[in-house]
Amino acid sequence: MNYQNVLEEVYEEVQDYLKKGKVANYIPALTQVDKNEFAMSVIDLEANEYNVGSFHKQFSIQSISKVFTFSLALQNYSKELYKRVGHEPSGDPFNSLVQLEYENGIPRNPFINAGAIVTTDSLLSIYKENTFDYILQFIQKITNDKTITYDNEIYTSELKHGYRNLALINMMKSFGNIENLTNSVIETYFKQCSITMSTNQLAKSMLFLANHGINPLKGDVLINEAKAKRINSLMLTCGHYDASGDFAYRVGLPGKSGVGGGIVAVVPKKLAICVYAPRLNKQGNSLAGTKALELFTTKTGLSIF
Amino acid sequence: MNYQNVLEEVYEEVQDYLKKGKVANYIPALTQVDKNEFAMSVIDLEANEYNVGSFHKQFSIQSISKVFTFSLALQNYSKELYKRVGHEPSGDPFNSLVQLEYENGIPRNPFINAGAIVTTDSLLSIYKENTFDYILQFIQKITNDKTITYDNEIYTSELKHGYRNLALINMMKSFGNIENLTNSVIETYFKQCSITMSTNQLAKSMLFLANHGINPLKGDVLINEAKAKRINSLMLTCGHYDASGDFAYRVGLPGKSGVGGGIVAVVPKKLAICVYAPRLNKQGNSLAGTKALELFTTKTGLSIF
Amino acid sequence: MNYQNVLEEVYEEVQDYLKKGKVANYIPALTQVDKNEFAMSVIDLEANEYNVGSFHKQFSIQSISKVFTFSLALQNYSKELYKRVGHEPSGDPFNSLVQLEYENGIPRNPFINAGAIVTTDSLLSIYKENTFDYILQFIQKITNDKTITYDNEIYTSELKHGYRNLALINMMKSFGNIENLTNSVIETYFKQCSITMSTNQLAKSMLFLANHGINPLKGDVLINEAKAKRINSLMLTCGHYDASGDFAYRVGLPGKSGVGGGIVAVVPKKLAICVYAPRLNKQGNSLAGTKALELFTTKTGLSIF
Amino acid sequence: MNYQNVLEEVYEEVQDYLKKGKVANYIPALTQVDKNEFAMSVIDLEANEYNVGSFHKQFSIQSISKVFTFSLALQNYSKELYKRVGHEPSGDPFNSLVQLEYENGIPRNPFINAGAIVTTDSLLSIYKENTFDYILQFIQKITNDKTITYDNEIYTSELKHGYRNLALINMMKSFGNIENLTNSVIETYFKQCSITMSTNQLAKSMLFLANHGINPLKGDVLINEAKAKRINSLMLTCGHYDASGDFAYRVGLPGKSGVGGGIVAVVPKKLAICVYAPRLNKQGNSLAGTKALELFTTKTGLSIF
Repeated sequence: MNYQNVLEEVYEEVQDYLKKGKVANYIPALTQVDKNEFAMSVIDLEANEYNVGSFHKQFSIQSISKVFTFSLALQNYSKELYKRVGHEPSGDPFNSLVQLEYENGIPRNPFINAGAIVTTDSLLSIYKENTFDYILQFIQKITNDKTITYDNEIYTSELKHGYRNLALINMMKSFGNIENLTNSVIETYFKQCSITMSTNQLAKSMLFLANHGINPLKGDVLINEAKAKRINSLMLTCGHYDASGDFAYRVGLPGKSGVGGGIVAVVPKKLAICVYAPRLNKQGNSLAGTKALELFTTKTGLSIF
Repeated sequence: MNYQNVLEEVYEEVQDYLKKGKVANYIPALTQVDKNEFAMSVIDLEANEYNVGSFHKQFSIQSISKVFTFSLALQNYSKELYKRVGHEPSGDPFNSLVQLEYENGIPRNPFINAGAIVTTDSLLSIYKENTFDYILQFIQKITNDKTITYDNEIYTSELKHGYRNLALINMMKSFGNIENLTNSVIETYFKQCSITMSTNQLAKSMLFLANHGINPLKGDVLINEAKAKRINSLMLTCGHYDASGDFAYRVGLPGKSGVGGGIVAVVPKKLAICVYAPRLNKQGNSLAGTKALELFTTKTGLSIF
Repeated sequence: MNYQNVLEEVYEEVQDYLKKGKVANYIPALTQVDKNEFAMSVIDLEANEYNVGSFHKQFSIQSISKVFTFSLALQNYSKELYKRVGHEPSGDPFNSLVQLEYENGIPRNPFINAGAIVTTDSLLSIYKENTFDYILQFIQKITNDKTITYDNEIYTSELKHGYRNLALINMMKSFGNIENLTNSVIETYFKQCSITMSTNQLAKSMLFLANHGINPLKGDVLINEAKAKRINSLMLTCGHYDASGDFAYRVGLPGKSGVGGGIVAVVPKKLAICVYAPRLNKQGNSLAGTKALELFTTKTGLSIF
Repeated sequence: MNYQNVLEEVYEEVQDYLKKGKVANYIPALTQVDKNEFAMSVIDLEANEYNVGSFHKQFSIQSISKVFTFSLALQNYSKELYKRVGHEPSGDPFNSLVQLEYENGIPRNPFINAGAIVTTDSLLSIYKENTFDYILQFIQKITNDKTITYDNEIYTSELKHGYRNLALINMMKSFGNIENLTNSVIETYFKQCSITMSTNQLAKSMLFLANHGINPLKGDVLINEAKAKRINSLMLTCGHYDASGDFAYRVGLPGKSGVGGGIVAVVPKKLAICVYAPRLNKQGNSLAGTKALELFTTKTGLSIF
C-alpha cells in the first residue's frame, strides 16, 4: 500500500493542532526548537519510505531511547532483568518516587524513568565504560546510519537539572537495585536521552520491532520473537506514562513518546512510523503528534484493535 | 483455520497447571465449584466453533460482566460517560479506594470495581427499575441465547459481603459521581456479577467486539467501530487489574477476567475465545486459564503484537 | 488566680480575627449562625467561673463529641479498644480513607472520623438501642446539667450528607472493624455530633480531664488517672486533624476542635476552657478561637511546654 | 526533690526489658555496642544531678542531634525556616519520600530525616565550611563540656550507607528546597549524627529547653521562650517518628530518640532527663529506655498531662 497520500492528508489536517500545547521547558536546551515544526515518516517491511514535513530534521529523542536500551538489555538478559524491573503500568507520572518506596525499589516498568535507569545500569554491568558507545552502535546498526550521535548541549543541560533522577537512583540504590556508580549511571542515562535523530531515522530504527525482532533491512535477528512482542506490549500498556490508556484507544498502536516531541509506533508485521511536533499536551506527549497518529490509524484501519 | 487440534494440545499441556492456584473464597457460594475443571471455546467470525472440556458448564462470570455493561452504556453515552470514568490503568488492586480519594471520585477505568459501578449507575439513570433486565437481554441478544440468567445464591452471598463495594459507592456519592440510590446500584451490580454462562456462550458473546461492533451471527450493529476498538484497548490495558501488563505480554490479546475463573479474549477481525479454570493466581486471574491463552497465541501466532 | 481580666483582654484583641475565615458549609444547618459571635469560658478545679461574650449561646459541638464518647468507651474498655483504634497522628485530613485501606481498617486515632465511628460502634455493642441516651447522660452528668440535648435539624442535615462517613463505615466493616448495623452506627454518630452546648457547659464538661479523671464538682471518679492522661495526650497530638502540630506550638494545651466553631482545652491540674467563634481556618478549626487560646496561654504562661 | 531513689527503682524494674529488642544494624559501626547496657541521668534547673548505670559511657546520639541543629537554626531564623520545614506529625516512617513528593519537597517537621537535612542546609547557608564546627560548639556550650566530639568510624560508615538520605536531598533539590552542595549537606548531616555523648552530657544539654531557652547553668539566653516552647511541642508531637503518639501517652513528656539507643526528654520548668539502652523496639526507639521514662513519670507524677 502507498501511504504518501495518507501522510499528506494527515499533515494538512493537523495544521490547527500545531499551535496548541507547550514545548518542554525543564531544561533550556529543549526550548530552542522551531515550535511549529512537523514531520512524519512511515517505512514498511519492504523498506518503502513515505515522508512529510521536515523529516530529516534532527531532534532530541529523550524517552524514546528507553526502547533502544531495553532492547539491547534483552539481547543480554531475560529473567534476571525482569526481577529488577516490572512490566505493569504505573498509574503515576514518569518520575514518581512513591511507587518505588512502596515496592522495594523495583520500578513498575522499563519505560518510566526509574525503570529505564535500571535498564541502563544493567548495561553498565556488562559494557562498563563503553556502555554509551554500545548503545549508540546498537541504534546506528538498527537504523543502518553511522551519523547518529548525541547533542552535548542538551546532555550538559540535563546533568545540571538532574536532581529528580538522582533521587530515583539513590532510592533504588538504598534497596540494592542499582549496581554501578551513581555518576556512571546518570551520565550514561542522560547521554542516551540526548541522542538526536530525525523521524526518518526513528521510523527505520523501529522496523525490527514491527518484524518480530528481525531487522528487515539486513535480515539479522536482533532479539527473539517473544522478546520483540514483549517490548511491543510494554509500549502499548506503558509507553506514554499516565496517558498510555488514552494513546491505546485513540491510536491503537504500540508506541513510545519523548518530551523532545517525537513519538514512534509500530504496526506489527507491517510497518514502523515516527512523528515529530515539539509542543506537548498536559501528559507530556506531542499534542499534534498524537493527533497525527490517531488520524493515520483511522484512515488506514491499521489499529491493532 | 481449524483450531480444534490447537485447543486439544492446549488442554493437554495445561493439565499440570489445573492443580495450582486457589479458588476465590471471599463468598462461600464461589467455593462450591469443581476446582480442577477446565473448558475452552473458540468461535470465529464465520461462527465456526471449537471447544474442549466442560464447555457447556455454567459458571459465575463476575467481572466479565463489566464488558457487557460498559458496551451497553456506550450504546447510550459517549463523552458524558468518559467524564465520569477514565480510561487509564489504575496501578492499584481492583477494589482500591485510594485512587478515588486522590482523584475526586472519578475511577481510573470501567474495569475496576469503582468504574464498573459508575457504568451500572449510568444505566440505572436510563433504564430505572428495569436496568438488570436490559443488561440480561443485551447479553442474551449478543449470545443469541435466551436461557442465560443469574445465580440467586451467588447474588445473595455477594450482598452479604459487599461492604467494600458499598464503601466505593458512598465514596463516589460524596463526590457526586453516583446518581441513583445506593441500594439500586449495589443490587444491580451484584446481579450482573452473578450471571452464569459457559465458555461457549461467553465466546459467542464477545464476537461483536472481535468484529468492530457488528454481531457477525446476525449482522446487526451493536456499537460503532470506534467504540468497539475503545473497549478492546481498555481490555488490553486494564482488563486484568494490576496484572494487565503481564497478561498483555504473555497472551497478547484484549481480554477480561473474572474471579469466577473465566477469561474472555478477542483476536480483532478473527475470533473470540473463552477459557474457564476456577483456581486463581495471586492477582486474582485464572491461573490455568491465563496459561491456556498464552499457549493458544504462541501456537497460532495470533498475538496482536 | 482571677482570669476575668485576661479573658476580657483576649476578647478585645481577637476582634480583628472575628471577621476572618469561613463558617462550615457542608451542611446547610451549620451556616445559619451569627458568623461574628464569640464566647469564652474558663472554669478552675474549685469551680470558679470566668466568662466573656455569649457564653450561654448553644452551638453544635460536632467533633468535640469525640472526646465524650472516647471517655465513655474508656470507662468500659482498655486494650480491646486500643486494638481497634490507634493513638498516632494520622498526617491526613479528618475524613481520609487512604490510611484505612493501607492499615487494615484500623483508624490511626479516636479523633479522626473513622476512629470516632469505631468508638461509637464499641458503645453500641454495650448499650445497644440506648447508646445515644447513655452518651447524652454521660455529658449531662459531667456537666451537671440535664438540659443538654441535640439539634434535630442539624442531625437530619448530617444524615442527608453523610456519604463520606458511610464510606468509612463500610470500609471498616469490610475489614471486620465495625460490629453493629451501619444505620445504627451512622445515626448514633450523627446524633452525638448534633449535640448543642454553650462554652460555659463545655468548659465544665472538660473539668474531669483537667483533674485526672475525677469530676471536681462532685468528686466522683469517671475514669482512672492513666486513662485521663491518655485522652489529654491524644488531644494534644491528634485533636486538630492535620493542624494538631500547629495548635500544639501556638496554644500548648491538649484540646479538641469542632467544625461548629468550638474548641475545648485543658490545663492539667488547673482548669478547663472553651472558646466559640464559628468562622474556621483552612484546616477546619475556629480561626478566632485558636487565636484566643494562643493569647490566653501567652498571657497566663499556662502552656504545658 | 531527690530523684536518686526513683532512678534506682527504675533501673531495677527495667532489667527484664534490657534483653528485649534489637540494636540498630543498618551500619556495622552501630552494632559494636554492649547490647545490655543501661544509663539514666536527671538534672534539675538548680544543676542537681542524679545518675544510674554507665552514665559517662559515650554513645552515638544520632537523631537527638536534630534537636541541637534545629535550636541553632532558630537562633538564626524564624518564618524563613518555617516556610521550608513544617511542624506537623508526618504519619510516615522517618525516611519516607512519599510525603515530600506530594507536598512539593517541604518536609512535615524538623525531626524526620528530610526536615533535619533542610535544617542543616539552612545552617550551611550561614556558617559555610565551618558549619559542623558551629554545631559542635553549640552543643559544647549548652553542655558546658569542650570534650564532646564525633566518632569518625560511625561517620564513615554512615557515608557508605547513605543512599536513602541522598535520595531525600536530591528530591528536595528538585523542588528547590536545598541551597547548598549535596556533598556538603550529607557530610555535615552525617557528622552531626555521629556525635557521641553520655546520658549525663545529654541531660545537661537539654536544660535550656526545660528552662524556656535560658541555660540555667550560666544564665545566658540561647533562644527566646516562644521558640523553646515550639521545640518542646515539636518533640512531643513529632519526636518519635510514627510512635510519637505512643510515647506521648506512655511517657507524657517532650522527648527525642535516636537509633543509637538514647532518648532525651524535658519536664518544662523542672528538669531534663536522658536514658540509654541500645536495643530498639519496632519503631526504632530504645525499648528499655521508653519503659524507663514511662516508669519515671508514673512514679513522680511529672507527666505534662
